[in-house]
Amino acid sequence: MTDTGIRIDFNNCMAARIGKAGLTDKELATAAARARRAFKAVARARKRKKLAWAELPHERETLEKIHESWEAKREAFDDIVVLGIGGSALGAICLRSALLHPEHNRLGVKDRDGPGLHVLDNVDPNQVGGLLDTLNLKRTLFLVVTKSGGTAETMAQFLLARERVKRMAGKTWRERFVCVTGEAGALSKIAAKEKFETLPVPEGVGGRFSVLSTVGLYPAVAAGIDAEKLLDGAAAMDAACASPEMSENPALANAALLWLFAKKRKCNVHVMMPYAHALRDVADWYRQLWAESLGKRVDRKGKVVNAGQTPVKALGVTDQHSQVQLYVEGPYDKLVTFVAVEKFDHYVRIPRAYERVEAAAYLGGRAFGDLLEAERRGTELALSSAGRPNETIWLAGVTPRTVGALLYMLELQTAYAGEMYEVNAFDQPGVEAGKVATCALMGRKGFDKERKRIEKARAPEAKYVVGGDAGR
Amino acid sequence: MTDTGIRIDFNNCMAARIGKAGLTDKELATAAARARRAFKAVARARKRKKLAWAELPHERETLEKIHESWEAKREAFDDIVVLGIGGSALGAICLRSALLHPEHNRLGVKDRDGPGLHVLDNVDPNQVGGLLDTLNLKRTLFLVVTKSGGTAETMAQFLLARERVKRMAGKTWRERFVCVTGEAGALSKIAAKEKFETLPVPEGVGGRFSVLSTVGLYPAVAAGIDAEKLLDGAAAMDAACASPEMSENPALANAALLWLFAKKRKCNVHVMMPYAHALRDVADWYRQLWAESLGKRVDRKGKVVNAGQTPVKALGVTDQHSQVQLYVEGPYDKLVTFVAVEKFDHYVRIPRAYERVEAAAYLGGRAFGDLLEAERRGTELALSSAGRPNETIWLAGVTPRTVGALLYMLELQTAYAGEMYEVNAFDQPGVEAGKVATCALMGRKGFDKERKRIEKARAPEAKYVVGGDAGR
Repeated sequence: MTDTGIRIDFNNCMAARIGKAGLTDKELATAAARARRAFKAVARARKRKKLAWAELPHERETLEKIHESWEAKREAFDDIVVLGIGGSALGAICLRSALLHPEHNRLGVKDRDGPGLHVLDNVDPNQVGGLLDTLNLKRTLFLVVTKSGGTAETMAQFLLARERVKRMAGKTWRERFVCVTGEAGALSKIAAKEKFETLPVPEGVGGRFSVLSTVGLYPAVAAGIDAEKLLDGAAAMDAACASPEMSENPALANAALLWLFAKKRKCNVHVMMPYAHALRDVADWYRQLWAESLGKRVDRKGKVVNAGQTPVKALGVTDQHSQVQLYVEGPYDKLVTFVAVEKFDHYVRIPRAYERVEAAAYLGGRAFGDLLEAERRGTELALSSAGRPNETIWLAGVTPRTVGALLYMLELQTAYAGEMYEVNAFDQPGVEAGKVATCALMGRKGFDKERKRIEKARAPEAKYVVGGDAGR
Repeated sequence: MTDTGIRIDFNNCMAARIGKAGLTDKELATAAARARRAFKAVARARKRKKLAWAELPHERETLEKIHESWEAKREAFDDIVVLGIGGSALGAICLRSALLHPEHNRLGVKDRDGPGLHVLDNVDPNQVGGLLDTLNLKRTLFLVVTKSGGTAETMAQFLLARERVKRMAGKTWRERFVCVTGEAGALSKIAAKEKFETLPVPEGVGGRFSVLSTVGLYPAVAAGIDAEKLLDGAAAMDAACASPEMSENPALANAALLWLFAKKRKCNVHVMMPYAHALRDVADWYRQLWAESLGKRVDRKGKVVNAGQTPVKALGVTDQHSQVQLYVEGPYDKLVTFVAVEKFDHYVRIPRAYERVEAAAYLGGRAFGDLLEAERRGTELALSSAGRPNETIWLAGVTPRTVGALLYMLELQTAYAGEMYEVNAFDQPGVEAGKVATCALMGRKGFDKERKRIEKARAPEAKYVVGGDAGR
């Protein structure tokens, strides 16, 4: 069960290879001691049932319920739209990119295995209107996902979808909505009134740790992803992370490395750069996980620390032609994590032609996968030669099992890192102020005081505005 | 002609508003002096015909040629695939997202105005194979875009597309390729042999500054974008940036602000966060522009400076639920640039319902665009209250004209910033090492020495590998 199909190679993080920006064995040993304490803190929290997300791989009843729900619906729907944002959207998007056909939504209904999977993770009128206009609403299922039940963006989308579906589908409109929500929120009240089918978000599973709960699994199952294997992979990773020694626990090793580079080498930027088109949105999902969990003003004792590292999503080879110049020559403020794949599903050969034109000749007969890996290795060598720390997470392939293992590893890594940083990795107090201001500006009841405060604020000064009307 | 529809409000960059992380008027004055010198250097370079990209808005012959070429083809094609990477891809992607229907490629051939526009900017076998498998190659035009003519990724894609098209289309296969390439490269040789239609990449226009050349304009015109208006907007911006005073030149103001925050406030991260789904890939295009232009090891005098700032693409409101926690509470290492839109094409109202559920009631009757702007304003207030510098680039709307103006402003800003940083903003020496290593690993002729060097390198040490086979 511990064969996860994943290993981490951090040779190029070491000073012996890349020079002074790298780490010494002595520094690793210091971090290992701190990592051991972090491991124990996480283990204690799990024992006290405080980390519900960590147990999701071992909980299979939810999956049965999802299958049951979807089996009753599958013949009726060609498209699924997830109405959700942040943690309610990123997991579904990441699983879609990773495990469906790269052109899934563009394929016709008859050419694909499952329904189209759309995730409406914004309130831009062009995007929201544009998507709904192009769907056959008679054969579209809306999955309304909000843990709190009151997320403004999701509620607004729901109100629009509801009106359009009612107009189109008449009496049966209610069958076109499934809610995934917490038990106490506004959506759960509405769902009860309308008798929408509702599946719970499990207690204690925060948005950014919810990909292996109903939130990520329902869209995955519906779109045709083998969710059992996702959970198997996550469970295998759990088993593979049973040791308090960073040399034997990949999630802990990565947490310790990232902590070391942040604290001892001032690397405030963490680049995740998958060399697999399918994994690009794993990097995007990870952005939320890493940024929201560690980006904290105060530590557990209340001391102001302004902690956190900026996660950056890059994509190999594409971003070699965009970001690598900066990574090789710019400030020493980054750790680059490649994600590499040993074997791709597709074997696509580069045909031979123009053998007398050297720029074409050397490519002919090779596989696209070979070129991709040669480019990754080339970038790895270039970074290392320039003294830039980098590591590689190796996946045996891109499968439900390895993807489940990878996502779970990154979640565990984040929990360990929270302990090493001594911050609460599971709250997000910094987003409250913006939400309150938005409610005030939208005229929500109970926000009058805040609205008045905003209205009283000084108007922008014209001298700090350039161009357009202001310039003339 | 100087009505660009764009203005920059940087009130929230000032210490008087946000406290010590902000700038003082005295600092602005210092930067203004440096900005004046930068302006003059750029003006001199333009006079000496050194900045060919800067003149593109005023050069309309190319556009005529593109129209002519495409008019002869439009009836024959349902899809266009750009084979290109980096600067050969990002402009087309950015214009597609900004100015076509948000679901353009998903729409059926009869439901959209122009052909589908696909950009193959990677060599992942699943992605490359996946796209080609799903297209009707008899009605697909391939636009092969590489300035040097030898880019490995583009050449590999071309070889594959060529074989598949030949198999499918027989004798007429050559009519399905158009090359956009420099005159001396390998592709131009091949194009001459095969008699492919070829359009030049103008001399002296580097990849990341090529969006307003044939590279970006051909796919734009073909897909149905009004490219004339794009150029009009860029020309208007050029006219609006005629002053050496940062208070009267938006591109110069932005260059100076970014330089100040990098140099005086250690902001090594620049977040561009559009509040418009359509502008998300403007931020991606800008990533290359900013990173590759300023990320430099040495300055113009050869002094090692390791300059550069990490550009980060974020999207409002989506990333409020992912990155804003970090931006509000994390390290003081960022400047956030919002891009806001005054008027959206679509007016979509949030319907009224559930008036007794407050989480729904306050939204009913408002426009999606109002909610989007209230969220942007809420985030702006939250960042400012937390003492985090931010500015807003305002667009009157998302139109070919404003998008042309915005892209050109960002290009000019980059050129000015290069002068302020005293680096060469137009080369990319740091990507060479990776390219050489890739050629060596792929067995290209003339790279034997490098290959031997790589082969001789030490193997990774097992003690720095965790998990998978290595762990057991």
